[in-house]
Formats: sequence, C-alpha cells, structure tokens
Amino acid sequence: MQNNIAGLLCKVRLEKPLVHHITNYVTVNDCANITLAIGASPIMADDIEEVEAITSIAQALVLNIGTLNKRTVASMIAAGEKANKIRIPVVLDPVGAGASGLRNDAVRALSERITFSVIRGNMSEIRYLAGENANTKGVDVSESDLMDGLDGGIKIAERLACKCECVVAITGATDIITDGTRTKLIKNGHPMLSGITGTGCMCTSLIGSFCGVTSDAFLAAASGILSMGIVGELAFEKAGQKGLGSCHAAIIDEISDLSQETIIRRANIYEA
Amino acid sequence: MQNNIAGLLCKVRLEKPLVHHITNYVTVNDCANITLAIGASPIMADDIEEVEAITSIAQALVLNIGTLNKRTVASMIAAGEKANKIRIPVVLDPVGAGASGLRNDAVRALSERITFSVIRGNMSEIRYLAGENANTKGVDVSESDLMDGLDGGIKIAERLACKCECVVAITGATDIITDGTRTKLIKNGHPMLSGITGTGCMCTSLIGSFCGVTSDAFLAAASGILSMGIVGELAFEKAGQKGLGSCHAAIIDEISDLSQETIIRRANIYEA
Amino acid sequence: MQNNIAGLLCKVRLEKPLVHHITNYVTVNDCANITLAIGASPIMADDIEEVEAITSIAQALVLNIGTLNKRTVASMIAAGEKANKIRIPVVLDPVGAGASGLRNDAVRALSERITFSVIRGNMSEIRYLAGENANTKGVDVSESDLMDGLDGGIKIAERLACKCECVVAITGATDIITDGTRTKLIKNGHPMLSGITGTGCMCTSLIGSFCGVTSDAFLAAASGILSMGIVGELAFEKAGQKGLGSCHAAIIDEISDLSQETIIRRANIYEA
Repeated sequence: MQNNIAGLLCKVRLEKPLVHHITNYVTVNDCANITLAIGASPIMADDIEEVEAITSIAQALVLNIGTLNKRTVASMIAAGEKANKIRIPVVLDPVGAGASGLRNDAVRALSERITFSVIRGNMSEIRYLAGENANTKGVDVSESDLMDGLDGGIKIAERLACKCECVVAITGATDIITDGTRTKLIKNGHPMLSGITGTGCMCTSLIGSFCGVTSDAFLAAASGILSMGIVGELAFEKAGQKGLGSCHAAIIDEISDLSQETIIRRANIYEA
Repeated sequence: MQNNIAGLLCKVRLEKPLVHHITNYVTVNDCANITLAIGASPIMADDIEEVEAITSIAQALVLNIGTLNKRTVASMIAAGEKANKIRIPVVLDPVGAGASGLRNDAVRALSERITFSVIRGNMSEIRYLAGENANTKGVDVSESDLMDGLDGGIKIAERLACKCECVVAITGATDIITDGTRTKLIKNGHPMLSGITGTGCMCTSLIGSFCGVTSDAFLAAASGILSMGIVGELAFEKAGQKGLGSCHAAIIDEISDLSQETIIRRANIYEA
Repeated sequence: MQNNIAGLLCKVRLEKPLVHHITNYVTVNDCANITLAIGASPIMADDIEEVEAITSIAQALVLNIGTLNKRTVASMIAAGEKANKIRIPVVLDPVGAGASGLRNDAVRALSERITFSVIRGNMSEIRYLAGENANTKGVDVSESDLMDGLDGGIKIAERLACKCECVVAITGATDIITDGTRTKLIKNGHPMLSGITGTGCMCTSLIGSFCGVTSDAFLAAASGILSMGIVGELAFEKAGQKGLGSCHAAIIDEISDLSQETIIRRANIYEA
C-alpha cells in the first residue's frame, strides 16, 4: 500500500488540487499551510453566498466543525450538497462531536444531507457518531473512551463506515482506517502530536488534498494519515528536544520535504 | 510564593483542566497551543447555542474581547453567567478596552453580569476599567498611560480589584497582581514580548489554565504571569538573535519545557 | 528609490503607526506579527459598531477580503468611508477576486464607495479588477492568467491605476508597481514565498504600515513589496534547507532584523 501512497503524493504535487475548506478559526492557518506544503492549493470560504461557487472550482471539500456556528453550519450543508452534486469528495472532521447539542445537531444534519467520502476523528468523536456511549472531553480524546482498546475501536469504525457508506478513520496511538470491508492499521506517529493544537485538523486537510487527486477514498485517507504520522516522527526527531513550538514548525518543514522514498521506508501499515 | 507556583504547575499537568475560551481570531492558535503546552486542554467555542454546554464541562472560562462582535459578546455573557452558576473561575482579558464604544459597552455589560476571578490587561486597559483617564492606542499600551509610574499603577489595580472584588493584574515592564489587599510585583519578562502579537492573550490563557486547578485566583494569576515572564526571558536568550519569528516559537518551546526548578530559580517576585 | 525606502523604514519604527485591519481569519496572526515586526502597531476590528471608531485612531486602513462575509463587507465599507473622510490611506487586498459572485460584488461595492491609496493583488486578481478575462483559481494565481507576460501585466496594472486613480501593484516573480504614470519593477523575492499561505496578505500589511507614515502611496507600496521580497530571499537562504515551516518563522525574523543597509544593498528595482 505504501507504494500506492507514494505515487499519490507525486500526483498531488503534479495536479495541485484546489481544496475548499470550511473550517475552524483556531487551526485554519496550519490547515492552509499543510495543504500548500503537501503540494495542493487551499481556499477557505464560508459565506453561504459563495460556498457553492467555490466548491464548484475545487477538487475536494473539507468540512471541520471545530468552531461551528449557525451561519457556518448552513454553509457546510450548502457546500456539501454542491460537492455531492458535482461528484467531488467531501471529508468531514467532526471536532468535539458529543460535547454539545449544537455539535451533535450539526453532525446529524450534515450526515443526513451529505454523502461523505471520509470521516476522520478521534475515538471520542467517532464513538459519538457511531451511536456508542461517548464521554467527549472537549476536542481532545477522553481517556475513558479508549477503554475498549484497539479491537473495540475497529468494530466501532467498521460499524460507522457501513452505516455512512464511507471511509472512517480513527486517529490515535494506532490509526484505524476502514471502509467497512477492508481495515488497515497505521502505527506511525508520535505522542508529541497531541501536544500541538490542530494536528487532527491538519491530518484531515492532508486527506482532503489526497482526495482531490483520486476517487479511491480509502487510499486517500491512508495517505493523509500515514503522511501525518511519518512527519510527526521526523519532526520529533529533529525538534523534540527544543519543545512544542519548534515541533509545530517542523511538522510543516517535514511535509514540504516528504519524499516517496521516506514514505515507503518508514510506513508501518498492518492488516487489522 | 514561587514554591506554591511550582506546585501548581505540577497540578495543571496532572489534572489537565479543560479551559473554555471565547477569544479573538488573531491569537487563538497561540492561546490553544500555550494552553496545551502548559499541560491543560483548550476548547474554543463561541456560538450562543453551545457555550453553556461547553462551559459546563470546563474547569475554567477565559473571555477575551480582542475581536469581539455583537454575536460573541452575547455568548460571553451566557458563558460567564453559567460559569458563575456552577462556580468555575472566569478570567477576563479586556483587549483594547477604551478604544471604542463597542469595547467599552462590552466590558461594562460583562462586569455587570459576571463575577470574575481575574482581570488581566495592560496599563491602558486597566486604567479604563478603573474609571481613570485612559488614552488607549489600539491594543498596545499607550505611552501616556504609563505616566503615573509603578506606584500609580498599583493604586489603580487595587482600586479596580476592590470595585470588582476580584484579582486584577496589570502586565508590563513590572507586573502588578493584587486582590485589593495583597499586592505582588513580578519583574520577570523581556521587552521582546511586546513585539509578538498575543503575548498578553497567551498570558491570560495561562492564568485560565492555573485557575482550572485551584480556587486561589491570586496564586493562579501570579502563576500565569510568572510563567509567561520566565519563558519570555528564556525564549529571548535562545532565539533573540534570530528574530521575532523564532522567539514566537521559542515561547511555546519554553512553556512545554518549563520545570518547577526553573520557576523557583528564576522567579523575581516582590511585595509592592 | 531604495534610499527613500530605507528612510521610510526608519520612519515606521520611529512613529509606530497604528494600522487598522479588517482581514481574513486564515492569515491574520501573520499580518499582526509582520506589522509589529516592521515597527508598526496592528489592530484587528471588524464589527460595524466599532470600525469607524477604530479607523479614527489609526494612521492607515487595510481591507483584505480573504474570508469575507456579508457582515464584514459592510464593516469594510463603513471603515473605508471613514478613512476617506479623515484622509488616512486605505489599502485593498482583493483576495480571490474573480472566484465567486460574492467576492466580485464586494470589490465592486468597495471600489464604488471608497478611494484607495494602493491595491495589491496577484495577476489573476488584478486582471479581474481591470476588467480583463481572468481565470481565478481560488486565492493562488492561475497559470493561464500569466500568459500575457510582464508587458501584458504592466499594461493591465497601468489601466487599473488610471481607472481607480490609485497605486496598483501586482506581486509575482517580478513585481509591478504603478500609479498609471510611473511604473517600477522589483525583482527581489523567492518562489518559496508562494508555498506559505498569507505572504501576499503580509505584503499588504507591510504596505499599510508604510502608508501610515507617508502620503506617497507609490513609495509606500514599493517599500512594502521590496521589504517582503528581500526578507523572502533572506528567509530562504537561512531556512530553505529546513522546509516551509522554518521559512515561515524566518520571514518574521528577517523583517524584525531588516536594516536600512540591507534594503539599499539588496534592492533590485528597475524602470518598466
């Protein structure tokens, strides 16, 4: 699989897909920069009067509910419906799902109206979406939601994938990627990533970038998650001794320098 | 006092308090990252339909009016009232108070409706809140507002602390922290900090993080301000020769590496 | 010309002009930091109830439509009209003009109601504003819009400058600056800059900072663009091997360290 991922990286850099983001204002700069660094082109636009026009010129749409409000939820629905109509992939990052009625209503409305290619979240968020008991503690994963272990997480991801007919990814110490039939695990990454805000959002932007050049959403999800995991390791190796601010910059450094050879050499991908 | 601050840092890292921020979009990424780097967990949420739910799961609330608008001021009031009701601390950063009628009306409405644990601002902002003649020049302190010197600043801070029955902190070359009875001065920090946007906001986020693990708001305010001052010195020592962009990253580096021993060794805390 | 630019840098650092920004939430932190790093003071404020008050205390106004919405467009018009009334310069960054009806309507409304001192954009954006066929691909320049080459770009910029009676700048491999009569080309800069989001926005903030200390909008535009170009080169020399994250921080480093001597020594300014 790593060979296909390496090939897809090359394709992103050649085709420079435009990735429309409706995303939160906390990590939006990092999302734009990582999209550029992987070789794609970001555009952030959230007013309902322009989201359909912007989606129309894009190759992929990323919806991230990190700092949602009523205005942007309506824009997400309009953009998502447009993306479905013109058949470009939609990636959902259900940040903090389970933490408030507004977030829960938003993911319900989005799920009812839009067909996603990929949903990526942490264990708490995906548990909530799958209808499991979730103990969401804000936007970071809750310890108690990890109690079912890797096997429990795989079952939950597979159930949600079947329910939503899309690829579901749970990122964490071991990442789970499934379309309900095939399931892969990725053991790259570093705990440092959870000390920097937006590494989940950035991972979703990478998935959106890869989705912009392939109709294989499973491969695109794996590509984004593997890329994030590998650069997490490399960033920690280079900047971990300096601290989290330097690691933050190093993540973008390593994405911009990521080679096909590094992907193939460092990938830790397993069958579930 | 530095021993108590060192102990509180340890407590933040153990308890990882959730800090709900309703804050400005200029420095929000830095606020999230410094909250994570000190060991707490940030969540940014500003829609009125969810702020009470998010405050309910948080251990502290930070209100920062840097890029306020009518929608977010209403959310701040709702969140603040909820925080008061469930007795979690509220920290106010009155960014640019005195610079416009909207900001002045907002701080008046917030002050009337919400009991704060800590108010932290620069000399111009605190002068305005205390009912003094203030010559606010945007979000940075006005030179003319420093004319009363340190003794004048202490009197103003003490008066506001008595009026609002909360801890008041004025950060600057010498930081002033008072609850109206006790007053401490902190002489850590570096002028470089005023060349980077959001170092005041970040300081407020640190205060919020410390408030999340103690009911001693005076100690929490001193802890946040001392931490920011010490890392300002360390960041300048390590990155000052490179420039302000490197210092910016180094601030987060040094917060993530801050040890109890460094706090005790470098603290410059005085009685007023 | 570089001697005048070096002198103007000195003036910015002495006078520390307050630069009011109504700008996008993607790159706003970088805009604030580069404004501080060049020696000016940024304030970001976008609520219609305060923009006139904030503009009234500012020395320049920057309008950037990167993530515009109906609420902020109204604020831009109010602030721009106030700026015209009190005769402080207004700088427009028409991010993504041509990409959606909302953006096109916004730049039309802004142009009808406000007299600008400087408009700075990429070739796609300026083509759209000049009434040329433009093939805007999001917020990055479209390859096909570069087909007319440098001579074509100069003609388009000069036409728009005459139409709007303001200075027009097209930034790219070679930067074009014109007031319709005089036209200068700047060949500083580095392709790395297009790999980091917001380098165009940052350049506009620099122009706004220089506009805050001179009534010579042509010189201010050249000053901002030359400064950005030179620091792009310096940042790449120092951090290019590390990657785009380090270059990002290095841009701010180099602006904060920029000397008059470096400006004079490295300037590549030509007559058109």
